[in-house]
Amino acid sequence: MDKNKYGLLSQIKYPSELRKLSVEQLPELCRELRQDIIDEVSVNPGHFASSLGVVEITVALHYVFDTPEDRIVWDVGHQAYGHKILTGRRDTFCTNRKMGGVRPFPSPEESPYDTFTCGHASNSISAALGMAVAARKSGHPERHVVAVIGDGAMSGGLAFEGLNNVSSTPNDLLIVLNDNDMSIDHAVGGMEKYLLNLDTNETYNRLRFKASQWLHAKGYLNDDRRKGIIRLNNALKSAISHQQNIFEGMNIRYFGPFDGHNVKEVVRIMRQLKDMRGPKLLHLHTVKGKGYEPAEKAATIWHAPGRFDPETGERIVPDTSNEPPKFQEVFGHTLLELARRNPKIVGVTPAMPTGCSMNIMMKEMPDRVFDVGIAEGHAVTFSGGMAKDGLLPFCNIYSAFAQRAYDNIIHDLAILNLPVVLCLDRAGLVGEDGPTHHGAFDMAALRPIPNLTIASPMDEHELRKLMYTAQQPGMGTFVIRYPRGRGHLVDWQCPLDEIAVGTGRVIHEGTDVAVITIGPIGYDVESAIQQIESEDPNRKNHVAHYDLRFLKPLDDHLLNEVGSRFKHVITVEDGVRNGGMGSAVLEWMSDHGYHPDVVRLGLPDCFVEHGTVAQLREKWGLDVPSIKKTIEESLT
Amino acid sequence: MDKNKYGLLSQIKYPSELRKLSVEQLPELCRELRQDIIDEVSVNPGHFASSLGVVEITVALHYVFDTPEDRIVWDVGHQAYGHKILTGRRDTFCTNRKMGGVRPFPSPEESPYDTFTCGHASNSISAALGMAVAARKSGHPERHVVAVIGDGAMSGGLAFEGLNNVSSTPNDLLIVLNDNDMSIDHAVGGMEKYLLNLDTNETYNRLRFKASQWLHAKGYLNDDRRKGIIRLNNALKSAISHQQNIFEGMNIRYFGPFDGHNVKEVVRIMRQLKDMRGPKLLHLHTVKGKGYEPAEKAATIWHAPGRFDPETGERIVPDTSNEPPKFQEVFGHTLLELARRNPKIVGVTPAMPTGCSMNIMMKEMPDRVFDVGIAEGHAVTFSGGMAKDGLLPFCNIYSAFAQRAYDNIIHDLAILNLPVVLCLDRAGLVGEDGPTHHGAFDMAALRPIPNLTIASPMDEHELRKLMYTAQQPGMGTFVIRYPRGRGHLVDWQCPLDEIAVGTGRVIHEGTDVAVITIGPIGYDVESAIQQIESEDPNRKNHVAHYDLRFLKPLDDHLLNEVGSRFKHVITVEDGVRNGGMGSAVLEWMSDHGYHPDVVRLGLPDCFVEHGTVAQLREKWGLDVPSIKKTIEESLT
Repeated sequence: MDKNKYGLLSQIKYPSELRKLSVEQLPELCRELRQDIIDEVSVNPGHFASSLGVVEITVALHYVFDTPEDRIVWDVGHQAYGHKILTGRRDTFCTNRKMGGVRPFPSPEESPYDTFTCGHASNSISAALGMAVAARKSGHPERHVVAVIGDGAMSGGLAFEGLNNVSSTPNDLLIVLNDNDMSIDHAVGGMEKYLLNLDTNETYNRLRFKASQWLHAKGYLNDDRRKGIIRLNNALKSAISHQQNIFEGMNIRYFGPFDGHNVKEVVRIMRQLKDMRGPKLLHLHTVKGKGYEPAEKAATIWHAPGRFDPETGERIVPDTSNEPPKFQEVFGHTLLELARRNPKIVGVTPAMPTGCSMNIMMKEMPDRVFDVGIAEGHAVTFSGGMAKDGLLPFCNIYSAFAQRAYDNIIHDLAILNLPVVLCLDRAGLVGEDGPTHHGAFDMAALRPIPNLTIASPMDEHELRKLMYTAQQPGMGTFVIRYPRGRGHLVDWQCPLDEIAVGTGRVIHEGTDVAVITIGPIGYDVESAIQQIESEDPNRKNHVAHYDLRFLKPLDDHLLNEVGSRFKHVITVEDGVRNGGMGSAVLEWMSDHGYHPDVVRLGLPDCFVEHGTVAQLREKWGLDVPSIKKTIEESLT
Repeated sequence: MDKNKYGLLSQIKYPSELRKLSVEQLPELCRELRQDIIDEVSVNPGHFASSLGVVEITVALHYVFDTPEDRIVWDVGHQAYGHKILTGRRDTFCTNRKMGGVRPFPSPEESPYDTFTCGHASNSISAALGMAVAARKSGHPERHVVAVIGDGAMSGGLAFEGLNNVSSTPNDLLIVLNDNDMSIDHAVGGMEKYLLNLDTNETYNRLRFKASQWLHAKGYLNDDRRKGIIRLNNALKSAISHQQNIFEGMNIRYFGPFDGHNVKEVVRIMRQLKDMRGPKLLHLHTVKGKGYEPAEKAATIWHAPGRFDPETGERIVPDTSNEPPKFQEVFGHTLLELARRNPKIVGVTPAMPTGCSMNIMMKEMPDRVFDVGIAEGHAVTFSGGMAKDGLLPFCNIYSAFAQRAYDNIIHDLAILNLPVVLCLDRAGLVGEDGPTHHGAFDMAALRPIPNLTIASPMDEHELRKLMYTAQQPGMGTFVIRYPRGRGHLVDWQCPLDEIAVGTGRVIHEGTDVAVITIGPIGYDVESAIQQIESEDPNRKNHVAHYDLRFLKPLDDHLLNEVGSRFKHVITVEDGVRNGGMGSAVLEWMSDHGYHPDVVRLGLPDCFVEHGTVAQLREKWGLDVPSIKKTIEESLT
């Protein structure tokens, strides 16, 4: 790609160069930056529509503020591609999301322009408030701190907790609310309606904006007079407005809404707000996918579209008709199948109906599926309330995001052992989304919780059967974890049989070494065993393989067989070694007086970076050759 | 106590009998119920001021609604003593909080009038919304569901997530906002100010209330016309009001504020709201501790006052001058001591400055302590933001409540290994507060998280030294867990020396059995060993005792010594066995090729009920005799 084809953009390696441009040049720069993102993402897939939507906001922020000395905190970093390109990473952007390349989300370990971890939504206000307080307390009173949060992320409780605390302590935080009427699917809930209503009030806001400009110019807005001015401000408001704004009610000055795609206007407003003391919120309207017509029309599809032809907008979708389906598709179809039979079943998703395929049920039974927005805690507690009074919710949350609901799982499900089927999608390594998104901790974190049943299917048939089992009468809280992506069985439809809770199965008979697995990684173990046996026929049936299937309750019969018959045991799991399935096996063996050698394969005690799942498995000893090597070491 | 001394109350075993009274009798019943609570709690200590504050609300709810068929969800159950007394538990209320007796918080396992788990704040709206949706979907369309939430709990993000979703699906939920300008210490944040502002607007609210009564009487408020009516309602509002209410903005009809101590008025309003379709919020003002003057004046002290003389209001405080201090006091004084020396240190507490003793630092350095309200997630992420930009926050959260911040600890601290000292107060068994409050899971849940340093002090000196160590330059995220209550050293002040991270220590030399402990339970192990040695001098120095001190990183040297010298190892911890410290020791031994017999003592795989800590330790094999017995079994 010719990096010089964009005249303005090619002059900018860092924001300091951006700040040499005139305001008049900014619309052209935005056009170039937008085109550059389209060029890049069309050949090297990644998140797309979100970054297009914030091109003007990104340019304006780095133009007005003195980054990296001033702090910009992006809420959910998949909108930050423009930010990366403008902050020293244009040359390497072709490595975005690739192993060893530019990280999928902003990361302070990569660039001083990246100020905080931003893989999970709704944390920007709290983190930025911390930075704004720290600026005053640690000798940088002139530092500006800006949080950029989408309206989708505003539904998360953490964002509200942050907002609620903004006025509690002196700070000069600026919150930019990027309102595109969307999270990944679409925004949900009362706050969205509230923001819509705010739009009706432009006259008042313009008036008040002018008033505060005037006050600022007169020097009335310095610190010690702030309280008085806020009172005056509120009085002004009462006089000229019919609206009590929630942000104003929380003592955060509100400005907007303005057009977030008018870069000159956004620069003008940000300059005026920049040195205004006290917390303030700037409400900007943007369009997700702005400037690329196909994305504007279908932002959900273009959230992360894969490769595409930038000219025609045609997505390059590989032919997968002969491949096994994704676990997500099997989940989606099976849920609908079960819901047709069992009227108690309802679906709950925190803003991921498309990602987890609950949209399949939603389409046929819209009133039995609840998309609660980005609100994992509520998703679980709400499910608990429904289960308490007779419904049977399937609550589907991405494993890494379910960390947000840890207490809800304990306090609002497990204590009462309520019949909720908690489906943890994207468990284990997820690949390119990196350390914030790997579902690494779920087994270790949930295993200590009493009452839970925890299972993981080795393939699509097992997933279907576990889902069927989980909704049987008398089950309590039932966790099913399964990974992102494709399974192993093209012919995935199978009868829905019940699996006895707490039973594993023998996959492969053997005499010398027992390998215990949970989840689809069992297929890789099978491959390793088959390679060993085909390379040396004398080793036929030396290696036994057990699919544990249930992390909790453990299969006493199976483990007793392993403990009594084998001196060498290997456990393999797509989750952290510390406290995970292998650790449960160790505990069981110890409690029952067995002392086999146990080698535990799993994710390491560090945050695993981004890369393809295959690359990461290779790196961390979980690919077929590594598993094979480990087994062979036990055999000799 | 003469249960018949209250004429009306003694006639009421269940709410059905309450509902036979005339409205005119209710003020007298409230007087009796309030006096009964005072009688009971003065001799059998428990939570106090909250329940006094909601006497009228409690009576009105059970009078107007058809409990238990109608559902009342209490947000934080320590306000529910009146509820318990009116729902079949007056005769047994003298056993409240005692082992085997009435549970400390409402529990569906105890009574059908108790509808959900309510130990942790802010979950009522989500759970009740689930019940309200379930009522319609599972054949109980006439069932009423009421959530009762205090203004303190409204600062929790989960409450906001619930509110945000209330209008997303058809339901008839009633939210009673019990506004007493208080959580345990005092309410914090913007929402509190917002609620204050709402009070200014009574005329409008009364007008609108009358309008909706009229519309209801005319039958305009049935389901299919609701949307139109809401629009009409909003239009009305615009015409007569200067206020856009956040609740109204979220399509929740708002009524109030009214006096929550005028029981006849509350009954009248609840009757009018009862059959109104759609979600609605009733804002009531109450006084925490109402009707008992000492409690009204000092609600924080009287939140849970211990025993007291009901006539004089004199609290019966046992003389503890010769006892060791509470860990909380040592934490509080040491934090101030460190903060005086290290200007980077700030304190963060989610609504527990008194409970964790951060009020000691707050008093001297009010601008360096942040009480963020009930908002554990924000407390952690806000701390992360401050740490990222140069401050050194000590963030103190009760262990069980820190489950709310699990993702924040992973995503907003550990990934960047930010220098935050996360102090988990009330770790391990807490006693009478029961299953929702035991800090059982922290070690098992946090151990799998990379980068964390996790330590637990055996006594006050160790706590001080760990706090000193944690704030040294170069430390990352540092977790210190310690229990509720008193330590072991009367002379607790000691020099602040640094402890090398990841080092344990030998407490007692021995040859046959190694006992590994973490935390103050090491003292009980010492007692057991001393008993063994004094009973049989031949056993002198047969039992070795190691204080592991750091759960993470593990002490390789210490564990190597144990693994190489001992065939019998016992681990003892005040936390869950599954995945806990003993499990970490097992993993380490397995990884390093040692195969000792390991007996792991810890909390069981069930939710531990309430009782004194001593009773619970005895029941679950963690008291001195049980530990002694376990050691003796290993010796023979």
